[in-house]
Amino acid sequence: MGQQLLTVCVQIKGASMETVSENACFGGVQGVYRHRATSTGCDMTFGLFLPAEARLHPVPLLWYLSGLTCTHENAMTKAGIQAHAAAHGLAVVFPDTSPRGEDVADDAAFDLGQGAGFYVNATRAPWASHFRMWDYIAQDLPRILTANFPVEEDRQAITGHSMGGHGALTLAMRLPERFASVSAFAPIAYPSASDWGRKQFTAYLGEDQVQWAAHDASLLMQETGFRGEVLIDQGNKDQFLDLLRPEALAHAMAARRQPGAFRMQPGYDHSYFFVASFMAEHVGFHAKALAGA
Amino acid sequence: MGQQLLTVCVQIKGASMETVSENACFGGVQGVYRHRATSTGCDMTFGLFLPAEARLHPVPLLWYLSGLTCTHENAMTKAGIQAHAAAHGLAVVFPDTSPRGEDVADDAAFDLGQGAGFYVNATRAPWASHFRMWDYIAQDLPRILTANFPVEEDRQAITGHSMGGHGALTLAMRLPERFASVSAFAPIAYPSASDWGRKQFTAYLGEDQVQWAAHDASLLMQETGFRGEVLIDQGNKDQFLDLLRPEALAHAMAARRQPGAFRMQPGYDHSYFFVASFMAEHVGFHAKALAGA
Repeated sequence: MGQQLLTVCVQIKGASMETVSENACFGGVQGVYRHRATSTGCDMTFGLFLPAEARLHPVPLLWYLSGLTCTHENAMTKAGIQAHAAAHGLAVVFPDTSPRGEDVADDAAFDLGQGAGFYVNATRAPWASHFRMWDYIAQDLPRILTANFPVEEDRQAITGHSMGGHGALTLAMRLPERFASVSAFAPIAYPSASDWGRKQFTAYLGEDQVQWAAHDASLLMQETGFRGEVLIDQGNKDQFLDLLRPEALAHAMAARRQPGAFRMQPGYDHSYFFVASFMAEHVGFHAKALAGA
Repeated sequence: MGQQLLTVCVQIKGASMETVSENACFGGVQGVYRHRATSTGCDMTFGLFLPAEARLHPVPLLWYLSGLTCTHENAMTKAGIQAHAAAHGLAVVFPDTSPRGEDVADDAAFDLGQGAGFYVNATRAPWASHFRMWDYIAQDLPRILTANFPVEEDRQAITGHSMGGHGALTLAMRLPERFASVSAFAPIAYPSASDWGRKQFTAYLGEDQVQWAAHDASLLMQETGFRGEVLIDQGNKDQFLDLLRPEALAHAMAARRQPGAFRMQPGYDHSYFFVASFMAEHVGFHAKALAGA
């Protein structure tokens, strides 16, 4: 049986936010909340796991960005992340992957439009009015979280899967003061040179590839790198290797002498069975970095 | 992205079985297989996690029976069980909860018919022709598993959630030589006295309550108990407490001096967030019993 959804409208610190559900989970609470976002101009839903420690004091915050077709829910139910977050006393936020709604533009393809925001601010019609996922993750949602929940603004880390790995890496490298550590599971690593990237960047940002570079993990790694350690896991039986282009990121990490690890995991594919298998190590990696932050 | 489904028909030891998917998972393999079942007279799908050790030698087998509305897939993706099964070197099988198909009887209610087999052999029309889940779990599927996979026939344990907790407890108590240990998450504990039980037993077995007693965990506990230890976890914020009737089982366990534990977990509800929170302890409990079996 799924959980009963108790929808309660609450007014917290002036922001209208709806509690969609709250379930006890590993001694803490797995919540789902809905709020109006100024960046995307629509209602946005996110999941937030708070460990038991959050009842006593603010806790560090780990971001988990999801991949194509996902909502806030996939990782929250399938990644097995709460066990490890509870063990380390970390909060985890699970944002949605795009604006949503009847008045929000969409495309018949699974990899463009709703469910495929690619963590950019679109500048082209019909996307520009709502598809501002960069601002949502970088500005809107952090404000909502720090204003309403016991999470530490100055201790944050970020991870993600596939398109969410791309988002985690690009956000971490471009907001170097924000995140103590970054990791990714099978990230879209070189979107400027892949059909998972060129198609979406053209639609959202236009033809000018200079605009794309700010959203390409391999190019950013080449240009700036990351101030802390970087952990990448990639399955060598991933059915999307040709689209992810992990070799470009591995090369850029090595060329820059980027501290961290790029690991090719034998036998693993692109599924959440892969993500869950290495989640303990990713959460432990972030917990260690956050403890020193 | 979901995993790619590679459907391959294989002939193994004379039984026609289809591999629906196989994903690397915690060093082992999470597989999904489909086969024709003689008991239920239809195709049945099940999940099977095999840990790394299964490449070298047969491993003990833990059964996980699911609840109302579930298929083989829910626990496989949401319970976080593979991490712990891998740590202890156990296989885990995830059977479906009923026969399925267009020619299989069904009911508009979520708690009768397909997705609600209640782990009994139906004797009444229109259910009797396919709804033989007791035989499927007790005879058919064990044969399929031991014939085709490296699992140890003489080292098995069983657990389940909700309706699956009911199934686990009744199978364990009535097949005392089969299972070294039994546990349950929020089981339907006293179906003879609950709307989760009376309705289904009447439909599947008829009005004669003598037939029901063989499928009632509290009555079986009162009559026979279990030869090993029993572990029950129940959330005290479970939205279905009135239907589950855990107090009857707790009373019967205490009255019989049944070795084991009945634990009321404060704050937890009926969801998989509850199940996942205590999965490590349940798998550890079974691993210990299986090591001594």
